[in-house]
Amino acid sequence: MGLQVAAPPSPSEDPALRLGIGMDASVTPIPNRTDTYLAQTTDFFYPLVDDPYLQGRIACANVLSDLYAMGVVACHNMLMLLAVSKEMTDLERDIVVPLMMQGFQDAAQEAGCLVTGGQTVVNPWVTIGGVASSVCGRSDIIMPEGAKPGDVLLLTKPLGTQVAVNAHQWLEDEGEKWQKIESRGSSRDEVTAAFRAATLSMARLNLTGARLMHKHGARAATDVTGFGILGHANNLAKNQKEQVDMVLDTLPVIKGMVGIAKTMGNMFQLLQGYSAETSGGLLMAISPEGAEAVKEELWKLEGEKAWVIGTVQAGTGTARIVDSPTILEA
Amino acid sequence: MGLQVAAPPSPSEDPALRLGIGMDASVTPIPNRTDTYLAQTTDFFYPLVDDPYLQGRIACANVLSDLYAMGVVACHNMLMLLAVSKEMTDLERDIVVPLMMQGFQDAAQEAGCLVTGGQTVVNPWVTIGGVASSVCGRSDIIMPEGAKPGDVLLLTKPLGTQVAVNAHQWLEDEGEKWQKIESRGSSRDEVTAAFRAATLSMARLNLTGARLMHKHGARAATDVTGFGILGHANNLAKNQKEQVDMVLDTLPVIKGMVGIAKTMGNMFQLLQGYSAETSGGLLMAISPEGAEAVKEELWKLEGEKAWVIGTVQAGTGTARIVDSPTILEA
Repeated sequence: MGLQVAAPPSPSEDPALRLGIGMDASVTPIPNRTDTYLAQTTDFFYPLVDDPYLQGRIACANVLSDLYAMGVVACHNMLMLLAVSKEMTDLERDIVVPLMMQGFQDAAQEAGCLVTGGQTVVNPWVTIGGVASSVCGRSDIIMPEGAKPGDVLLLTKPLGTQVAVNAHQWLEDEGEKWQKIESRGSSRDEVTAAFRAATLSMARLNLTGARLMHKHGARAATDVTGFGILGHANNLAKNQKEQVDMVLDTLPVIKGMVGIAKTMGNMFQLLQGYSAETSGGLLMAISPEGAEAVKEELWKLEGEKAWVIGTVQAGTGTARIVDSPTILEA
Repeated sequence: MGLQVAAPPSPSEDPALRLGIGMDASVTPIPNRTDTYLAQTTDFFYPLVDDPYLQGRIACANVLSDLYAMGVVACHNMLMLLAVSKEMTDLERDIVVPLMMQGFQDAAQEAGCLVTGGQTVVNPWVTIGGVASSVCGRSDIIMPEGAKPGDVLLLTKPLGTQVAVNAHQWLEDEGEKWQKIESRGSSRDEVTAAFRAATLSMARLNLTGARLMHKHGARAATDVTGFGILGHANNLAKNQKEQVDMVLDTLPVIKGMVGIAKTMGNMFQLLQGYSAETSGGLLMAISPEGAEAVKEELWKLEGEKAWVIGTVQAGTGTARIVDSPTILEA
């Protein structure tokens, strides 16, 4: 989920509470300053797409997304973390690395922040990521804990990025997996289009969504990444002050990816809600009217869809998908 | 050297000026807040020592050192960046990773900051590092640009960590290199002691040195890492407002390492000033009286030595080592 607010720094506190899987952003009050918090998040990973420029954009969008999920829209500084593969030739490095850096910087610029530094190392595998930081006030932060029964759940990007990335890889490999997929009726054009849609989706900032969360009173949010939609919904449900459940009744998925996920058996767990996403959408708990307003404005401002995918109900702090959810092709 | 102050964020500024080798810390003014700056640095690297706990401490000390070099003593948040090797067995991971994390956290605690998050991935090689951040005012920062002719250069840790780490590795390998070193008169005990001294030196925080920089009016500083003492002195000289040279006349080196560096020919460039250091000392330009006071108090507070290793002279913005510098065994 990616958010905790630390008490005023006291190093004797149990660090185990503040570090571990699923915790990738933090909010630290700054002592001796009024209403001043340091919100920070870091993430780095291995490339998913062949295009180094878009990979750079995706990495940056993915890092920023954890700030946006808590409503923090002003990133004040970005550091880039880069590992260049020792197996690249000089020529490959000279072409690929500047393009990745440019993509990362362009996305940061779109977010209104500078990349002021970072670290570059040589490694067997390429990695790219960053550190996003904001110095903000309490009202800039939407703590992910205020969801109420009667709220709806709004999602701002479709699911299925991992399926699309894998399917595209298999298409390029032309091996057994691709033969299986093609024999069940998926076409090259469909997979290529899905991969393009996934790439653009992953490269898109969640900034506008975060701004609209403030404007229309979202009460809690997270961003959808490695644990899949249900994993993140579950974390979000657990973190609410009121005892609520998050019930998902609709799954918007990139066109064609449901069929491929079914063809591949239980590999992705897409319809079970556990398929990992990279730089996924914001999942927010918000009033039904607020959700409509966010949907409408996101469409007007960016030409992008959002979907009401479920409801917040009185419960016990868990999330679930209804039997036979509505599947939307996005 | 690791420091630039960005103008109030304007993403249209040339990012090339703010990103690249040698730039590993940044100071960003926060808009709409009086006298508020975000000082940040990140670093990660591959393990140098076998002891995972001490490796964690070294990584943390190394990250913090860039803040300390600019006089920023209050680290408000630390993120840990960790890559676990895919080649480790489960047992190795279960033992090594918690120890590395504990060492890192203990060093952060000593610095008075919490580790509030981070990112862990699997990678062919182990890497460890972090991100240190401070929200501070202008007077908390000592910009590395105020050195004046008549100042002296004070160094707070001895040189030779890389030589000691390598020599110890060769000792363990018992191969040709060790035979060569031993045949020239270096003993096992000497190398083991040097490795221990280097490990403890790398694991030591530069925090007290940074506090004393404020107390005794240091005018510019950097920390000594990958470019070696002369590389960093040169960067520091270049960055001064006045046209000065930094002239090094004394090289304090971990006991026995000068002999090994000479045995290995030009491999380390230790006496040429280019042997890389990890988590090295602060190199500060300060008045002669200030230098004496820092030396004295560092000894009183931590039982650690510092050395006046050179002078600041009117010049052209470069650094050099005099012919036949004094070599001190530390």
